[in-house]
Amino acid sequence: MISLKDKDIISILDFTKEEILYILEISGKMEKEDRHGILSGKILANLFFEPSTRTRLSFEAAMKRLGGEVIGFDDLGTTSTVKGESLRDSVKIIEGYCDIIVLRHFLEGASRLTADSVNIPVINAGDGASQHPTQTFVDLYTIQKSKGEIENLSIGFLGDLKYGRTAHSLAYALAHFNADMYFISPPSLRMPKDYLEELELKKVSFQEVNSISEVSDKLDILYCTRIQKERFAEPVEYEKVRGLYKLSKSVMDELNVKDGLKILHPLPRVDEMDESLDSTEYAVYFQQAHSGVPVREALLASVLGVIQ
Amino acid sequence: MISLKDKDIISILDFTKEEILYILEISGKMEKEDRHGILSGKILANLFFEPSTRTRLSFEAAMKRLGGEVIGFDDLGTTSTVKGESLRDSVKIIEGYCDIIVLRHFLEGASRLTADSVNIPVINAGDGASQHPTQTFVDLYTIQKSKGEIENLSIGFLGDLKYGRTAHSLAYALAHFNADMYFISPPSLRMPKDYLEELELKKVSFQEVNSISEVSDKLDILYCTRIQKERFAEPVEYEKVRGLYKLSKSVMDELNVKDGLKILHPLPRVDEMDESLDSTEYAVYFQQAHSGVPVREALLASVLGVIQ
Amino acid sequence: MISLKDKDIISILDFTKEEILYILEISGKMEKEDRHGILSGKILANLFFEPSTRTRLSFEAAMKRLGGEVIGFDDLGTTSTVKGESLRDSVKIIEGYCDIIVLRHFLEGASRLTADSVNIPVINAGDGASQHPTQTFVDLYTIQKSKGEIENLSIGFLGDLKYGRTAHSLAYALAHFNADMYFISPPSLRMPKDYLEELELKKVSFQEVNSISEVSDKLDILYCTRIQKERFAEPVEYEKVRGLYKLSKSVMDELNVKDGLKILHPLPRVDEMDESLDSTEYAVYFQQAHSGVPVREALLASVLGVIQ
Repeated sequence: MISLKDKDIISILDFTKEEILYILEISGKMEKEDRHGILSGKILANLFFEPSTRTRLSFEAAMKRLGGEVIGFDDLGTTSTVKGESLRDSVKIIEGYCDIIVLRHFLEGASRLTADSVNIPVINAGDGASQHPTQTFVDLYTIQKSKGEIENLSIGFLGDLKYGRTAHSLAYALAHFNADMYFISPPSLRMPKDYLEELELKKVSFQEVNSISEVSDKLDILYCTRIQKERFAEPVEYEKVRGLYKLSKSVMDELNVKDGLKILHPLPRVDEMDESLDSTEYAVYFQQAHSGVPVREALLASVLGVIQ
Repeated sequence: MISLKDKDIISILDFTKEEILYILEISGKMEKEDRHGILSGKILANLFFEPSTRTRLSFEAAMKRLGGEVIGFDDLGTTSTVKGESLRDSVKIIEGYCDIIVLRHFLEGASRLTADSVNIPVINAGDGASQHPTQTFVDLYTIQKSKGEIENLSIGFLGDLKYGRTAHSLAYALAHFNADMYFISPPSLRMPKDYLEELELKKVSFQEVNSISEVSDKLDILYCTRIQKERFAEPVEYEKVRGLYKLSKSVMDELNVKDGLKILHPLPRVDEMDESLDSTEYAVYFQQAHSGVPVREALLASVLGVIQ
Repeated sequence: MISLKDKDIISILDFTKEEILYILEISGKMEKEDRHGILSGKILANLFFEPSTRTRLSFEAAMKRLGGEVIGFDDLGTTSTVKGESLRDSVKIIEGYCDIIVLRHFLEGASRLTADSVNIPVINAGDGASQHPTQTFVDLYTIQKSKGEIENLSIGFLGDLKYGRTAHSLAYALAHFNADMYFISPPSLRMPKDYLEELELKKVSFQEVNSISEVSDKLDILYCTRIQKERFAEPVEYEKVRGLYKLSKSVMDELNVKDGLKILHPLPRVDEMDESLDSTEYAVYFQQAHSGVPVREALLASVLGVIQ
């Protein structure tokens, strides 16, 4: 029997296929049923050492939907770290105020350090450029919900695959589910070699292409990512890439796509995805954002041991 | 039968006389009775794109007094808008986290745009220079409570009537109640022409004067507003006006006033109203501030459909 | 019979020995028993005019552990004071939104002014350089808990005794309990004369020394404080002092200490106390930090009158 009681959620790599499926199942129940009160009396400490409004609010909503309480901060400037306190000291103290910690930090490894320092469960809400596992659970849940299944799908990853941590984590997770993967990006923003080698080891079938038109007829899911201006040394380079990877209703109309294709995006978008797409049947990115609540309800309730 | 279930609260102009009276009646009940628990399990998202501590705290208190929960932010710097996200996207995402949105924004029209983007009720907590309807309900409630009635009163509006949006909205709302209005201001801060024309259309009797002494013996209510230094190009001009429209106990002692006159002020005050006034029987502005809670309780419970 | 209902908590000096013992007793009960729900429907306003994450979070946790709700702010920039409002006006308005106020302010005397302005209980969470009484209750509780008693102990105060307000308040409070006190500091950071004279009046036995080695064999409790760089005009002076008053496991190993010595620190520490100390049996400073919750639960429940 699977139990996630007291488990830290630091990286999607720490989860077996069975554990992932279990969390998706609980997430579905959370979305359908009202479980207000099951976390009554429990306190979540939302420690956001860098701001991330969307993630913070969805954890808060999840905790409060289940009847729990939230304390925390969302701004480095108001914390004791300005007095020179170590992260280790900070979390060891706050451990005494709460039942579970959700940590967002600008430094890679901050979540693991926190989990090693305290005796209560820790959930990584993004640390540095590395891991953001709850986003990956949200992505997996949205894929499963919108396609009715999660095994044997063809998934396209579009945009900045070099720096996009959500794409990296999702690719790893989908390796459990016999996915065919298509990495669609300009040459300068390809998936890092390490990741590709890891996928090869896991015997994942994948292909790298420059343009969505080369593979659009094969895709069940198109996972878009934000192309960040900051990643380019030359503005001219950014402008060129940005135009090529911009989706809109008219772009989709001209592509040859498979029936039932769904488009995901972790949001926020800037201009890589036009609002004209929102009313098409491809678009599931707002449902994806809304799924942040039931998925995080499932994670909170599981590691707090009220659902087994 | 009146029901406000699912209604957005964007402008006082959207409300009929009957709806206003209905909200005042529910507000009175909220002040007298303990209704803790009627909003249990509901979540309010308090989205403050510009800070307004008083308004934010009174919405939070109202929601929590009724057993509901609050999520949100009070500082633009911590939101995704720094990444270039549109307001429309932001609120469509947050819609999935909550049951009702309260929005404060620096741009006129932001509340209407939000209400058009989401399928849950939206309450305008002030957008740009235009509307702040819940403040108007608080003002109306305070007038009714302190005078025992709201029909056929004589109301003086004192101070900055050019930029004071609370005065504009209150004047419009009182047009339903056969009020006689006196606009007391320096010539440079008169009510805008549009508003006066609208009042004429509604057949409201009003008069513009330079000094409170010309009309003090006629007033049942004196509604003061803050004169903001920023409105004046010349500091000298500000200093001159400020002295003329400053109220104190000794100023009131020298005026010929009607029995039972009550003074309101939306607060904060700076120095247009002296602390010596606080202990007089004229002063109801702190009660007015405190009424923010029951009035907002009434609004939240009504649009969430738990009171009909 | 002791009742603290409606009492303001402004300074430890306002409490009798009996009242202090009463609060320590209630704190012990709060730590052992789950009292979730006894503050249901009550609202605490956490007004932090200067940031203090630790104190703010521990009050929030205490209120929420008991089923109460919290509103507030932790950042001056988001409050109406930027519009020039007086503290008196701010708290008189917020009084209408809540049942109890916790105030942190950068100005000495702000808590007393607040308590004089409103009709609900006020708790001082630190105002200027003067008082922070709830920290003193936490310190007393930790001493009593770790030693099994609070009477007749030998207490060493180490570090910055000139500016360290926690040391000042704790010394005053321990004067009730027949303590022997040892003030261990560099000559430039000695206890202020006023305090020593007051202790003499109270017939407290105390001694001032330069080094912990002179008195280590006498101490039941060693109370460390942070030595703040800002207090020194010359960096060189700071470096010299800092080295002499730094504790670590190896420093402790070389000292001749009494059995059962416990080390407290109000935290955050910077480098005056090495992490090597954390796993020794001397260290109780993390328990001390965690005791912030039950002690503040006791204070909140007592002044709100739900425990008598």
